[in-house]
Formats: sequence, C-alpha cells, structure tokens
Amino acid sequence: MSGSGTLVQVKRLLIIGIGAGDPDHLTFQGANAIAAADVFLLVDKGEAKDDLTRLRRDLIAAHGREPYRIVEARDPERDRTTPAYTAAVEDWRSRRAQIYASFIADDLADGQSGALLVWGDPGVYDSTLAVLDEIDAEFDYEVVPGISSISALTARHRVALTRVGRPVHITTGRRLAAEGPTADDVVVMLDAACSFTGAGEDHHIYWGAYLGTPDEILISGPVTEVADRIRAARAEARARKGWIMDTYLLRRAPSEDHRRTQNK
Amino acid sequence: MSGSGTLVQVKRLLIIGIGAGDPDHLTFQGANAIAAADVFLLVDKGEAKDDLTRLRRDLIAAHGREPYRIVEARDPERDRTTPAYTAAVEDWRSRRAQIYASFIADDLADGQSGALLVWGDPGVYDSTLAVLDEIDAEFDYEVVPGISSISALTARHRVALTRVGRPVHITTGRRLAAEGPTADDVVVMLDAACSFTGAGEDHHIYWGAYLGTPDEILISGPVTEVADRIRAARAEARARKGWIMDTYLLRRAPSEDHRRTQNK
Ligand SMILES: C[S@@+](CC[C@H](N)C(=O)[O-])C[C@H]1O[C@@H](n2cnc3c(N)ncnc32)[C@H](O)[C@@H]1O
Ligand SMILES: C[S@@+](CC[C@H](N)C(=O)[O-])C[C@H]1O[C@@H](n2cnc3c(N)ncnc32)[C@H](O)[C@@H]1O
Repeated sequence: MSGSGTLVQVKRLLIIGIGAGDPDHLTFQGANAIAAADVFLLVDKGEAKDDLTRLRRDLIAAHGREPYRIVEARDPERDRTTPAYTAAVEDWRSRRAQIYASFIADDLADGQSGALLVWGDPGVYDSTLAVLDEIDAEFDYEVVPGISSISALTARHRVALTRVGRPVHITTGRRLAAEGPTADDVVVMLDAACSFTGAGEDHHIYWGAYLGTPDEILISGPVTEVADRIRAARAEARARKGWIMDTYLLRRAPSEDHRRTQNK
Repeated sequence: MSGSGTLVQVKRLLIIGIGAGDPDHLTFQGANAIAAADVFLLVDKGEAKDDLTRLRRDLIAAHGREPYRIVEARDPERDRTTPAYTAAVEDWRSRRAQIYASFIADDLADGQSGALLVWGDPGVYDSTLAVLDEIDAEFDYEVVPGISSISALTARHRVALTRVGRPVHITTGRRLAAEGPTADDVVVMLDAACSFTGAGEDHHIYWGAYLGTPDEILISGPVTEVADRIRAARAEARARKGWIMDTYLLRRAPSEDHRRTQNK
C-alpha cells in the first residue's frame, strides 16, 4: 500500500508451514493461508518422496478455494557426493531461487497470492526463506509457522524439549558426529549416519521416524541399550520405503521423573 | 485396553498445545482434542494475565463439544524472591501436581477425557509434563504439539531459526546473563531482565513481544542500535498491560542475505 492512496497490486508469497507429517498438524492460520492462495508451487523432489508431495496435494484439495492453480517444478539435483557441504547447498540454492523467481514472474499476476507449502516449520532447517532472500523481484511475503518435527517428536514421546532453567541445542547429524553432544539436551536432525552412537553411557535417546504419519516409529531408552534396535529399524524402514526422515533428542542423565514417564 | 478383551475405562488426559497467542495457531489436531474432552481444567494465574485465560476460554467455546465442563483451580504462588530458582520451581511443581491429581481423582469419571490447554508448545519451557510425572494416579495421557513462541517469533520476523548446517541454542534469560551467547544463533526465553544487552557489536536481534496477539511488537536490528528501543518498548508495554511475554533470537554476524530481508 503506497502512501499516495493508490492501491499497489503487489505480488504476494505465502510461505506456509504444514507440519511434520500429520495433516492435522496444519494450523487454522495455515488453512486460511491455503484458502487465500491463487496459485501453489509444488516442487517435485524427483525421488521416492511421493508421500511428501501427496500431503501437500491433499492439504490443497482440502483447504484450497476455487479457482486456484497448481504449478509444478522439478527440484534441481543437489550434489551429495562433495564434502563441500555448504558450497553444494549454496549452488543448489541459487538454482532453487530461479524456480521461485520464474514462479513469481510468470505464474503470479499483480495482486495475486502464490503459496509454498513448507514441511514442518519454515524456520527449522529449511532453505525457503534464505532462497527467497536471493531473489530480486518485487514481491511481499508472509510466513506461517508450522509444527516442526521437533515438536512432533517430543509430543509423541510425551517428554519436554527443555528441562527447568536449562538450555537445549538443536543441531545436525554432521555436527553431532564431529562435536559430540554439546549440551545435556540435544536435538539432532538431518542425520543420515546414526551419529548418536557417539553418545555416552549416561545418555537417553528419544528417537522418531516418519513422525505424524501411519509409518511412524518411536524408540526410546538408554542409547547403549537401544542403539542397535534403532539402527535396524531405520535400515529396514529406509529399504522398504526408499527414504526416511528421523530425528531424536539426546538427554543426559534423565532424572527419575523421566524414567517414570517411560515406564508408564 | 487390556489383553483380556475387557474394555478398561481408563481416565485420559489430553495435554493440548494451543499456540503462542493467535487463536489461529491452533492445529486441527488441537481442535479435535478439544472436541474430544469431557472436562477442561483451567488454572487461574491470579495475576493480570487475563488474556491468557481468555484465549483458552475462547478456544473451548469455539471447538468444545457439548456437554463439557470447565473446572477452575487457583495456581499456587511461586516464590520469585529466592535465588534458589530450581528449588522454588520444584516446590511450586509439587503443589501443581496436587491440583492435577485432584482433577483426575475428583473431576474425571472412568473413561472420561480431561484437557489441559498449554500455552505454545507443551515441550517448550512448560512444566505440565514434568508435573504429571509426579502424580501417582492411574491415567493415560496424550500430548498434542503446538506452535511455540519460537516458531511464532521467526515467522513474524520472516527469518529462519537455523542457518545451513549450523546449530541453534535455546536458553533462558538467566543463562544468557550468566554465560553470554553460547552459539552464533541463540533463542532466549523467560528473560525478565533484557539480558541481550550483554551481546556484542556483531549481534543482530530479532525481538518479539505478545506474538500473535493484537498487542504484538516486533523490533529487529543490530543489538547495539536497537537495545534502547526494545527496553523502552518493553517497559512501556509491561506498565500498560501489567504483564509481558517476550522472546528473541540473537544472531551473530548475519550474512548480507539477512540484512536484505530486514530492509525488504
Ligand atoms: C530439511 S529438514 C526440514 C525440517 C522441517 N522444516 C521441520 O520443521 O521439521 C528435514 C529433517 O527434519 C526431520 N524431520 C522432518 N519431518 C520429520 C518426521 N515426520 N519425522 C522425523 N523426522 C522428521 C529429519 O531430521 C529430517 O532429516
Ligand atoms: C513458561 S514459557 C512457555 C513457552 C511456551 N510453552 C511456548 O511454546 O512458547 C513463557 C515464555 O515463553 C515466551 N513466550 C510465550 N508466548 C509468547 C508470546 N506470545 N510472545 C513472546 N514471547 C512468548 C516468553 O519468553 C515467555 O517468557
């Protein structure tokens, strides 16, 4: 809206967190944003991750308001073989930026709203916001928070993420492998290598895969006792489905309280 | 459900995350859980925090399914004068446990579901789950994740919580005051003392108060530039409303990307 009183018809993007797997993770704010969108951009990962695209399509079908359009794009391949992780991500990002830029330029008319449906919470290990920063086009955007896989994990295990007056660290599998647990409570995401096996005797793990979906697997216990079971369950599920998403909380020396919860 | 084929009529508690202030933060899972409850326990803080109770009442009115009952209890006072923070919390907790225990014993019939509506996400600096651990009664319980004030904060500022391949630390104002920022990205909650003023020259702050509510205030910028403005806004709002809830992300040396977002 300009100060001159003219109605400026800007293009608008809605970055909508859809939750971590359960369609009922969607918030009313998310449903309203889906209803407000004229066009949706679906980026196909070109992998076996059909379930992830299917959830997006289902949510659009359930909450989208006609008439709306769906635009599909193909995700650029990311070079996963290079040890230069950050550089590979940067390169992938600028190609992703081009997808978003063409979406805004070609698929959105002035005054229209385009929506990107982001897995989990858009703030948590997701590149959408950083990629949008690289785009020069004129557009406005809003972010709708979503249930992250962290919230889903702790809810399903019925444990608190944070203990009274204590910090929690959120990190990646690569970092855990390199640094070990940096706090008494550490959440690990993006771990393709079961890096929790480096955790000590006194660590409890709350592990979850495919959280919020019919394939959900939950395992918890002292790391030394359950590590093999997690590794086996992970390998089996990954082979069967072709992909896996898992995350976990490592908690050092859980108090008696936490043990009681586990046994309840 | 027992193995013998008998339908065991256990009492069930639903611990429902309601989001951090915006009624539309509620998830469909949360709405369904409210609809499934026979009885709600509302704990009155006995402070000026009427707004917090009001949101709960509004959500019950909007999503509760008749017939339902609302049970009210008075929160035990917490000793905020003692430096023995953890001990004071423990004492407060065991009195809270008695409230929950009587709710389960006196207000829930066998087979009924009682609901506790928890601010934000039940996993994030909330005592409900730990308090339930102290209760000996027979009951089953489920946790429904909610939008935390962390997700609300980053969404409103349109920044990511995590940067590529990097950790984020979530901590309290007390700890920040004692330890300073322990990572390049630190989220601070429960800070009554504007402890961000200890952060250095190269820190950016994304601060938010009353997130998701009509009173929402957002301020961001280099800490050294905006600290006074935040302190003043905080003091003014707190005096006017009688209470405040604020949280912030401290980010060291934001890349050019982040600066661009801010100026967009
Ligand atoms: C690219 S990040 C995206 C995270 C997402 N934005 C969120 O808020 O959860 C992907 C990682 O999130 C975690 N994750 C996402 N969804 C999950 C689910 N349903 N179950 C278990 N882990 C999940 C896994 O650690 C996975 O490697
Ligand atoms: C007892 S903790 C509860 C946190 C809650 N479970 C959550 O998920 O956000 C209270 C702290 O959360 C933060 N907080 C909660 N709601 C907030 C809001 N609407 N705006 C800003 N900060 C909030 C503040 O740091 C406050 O001191």
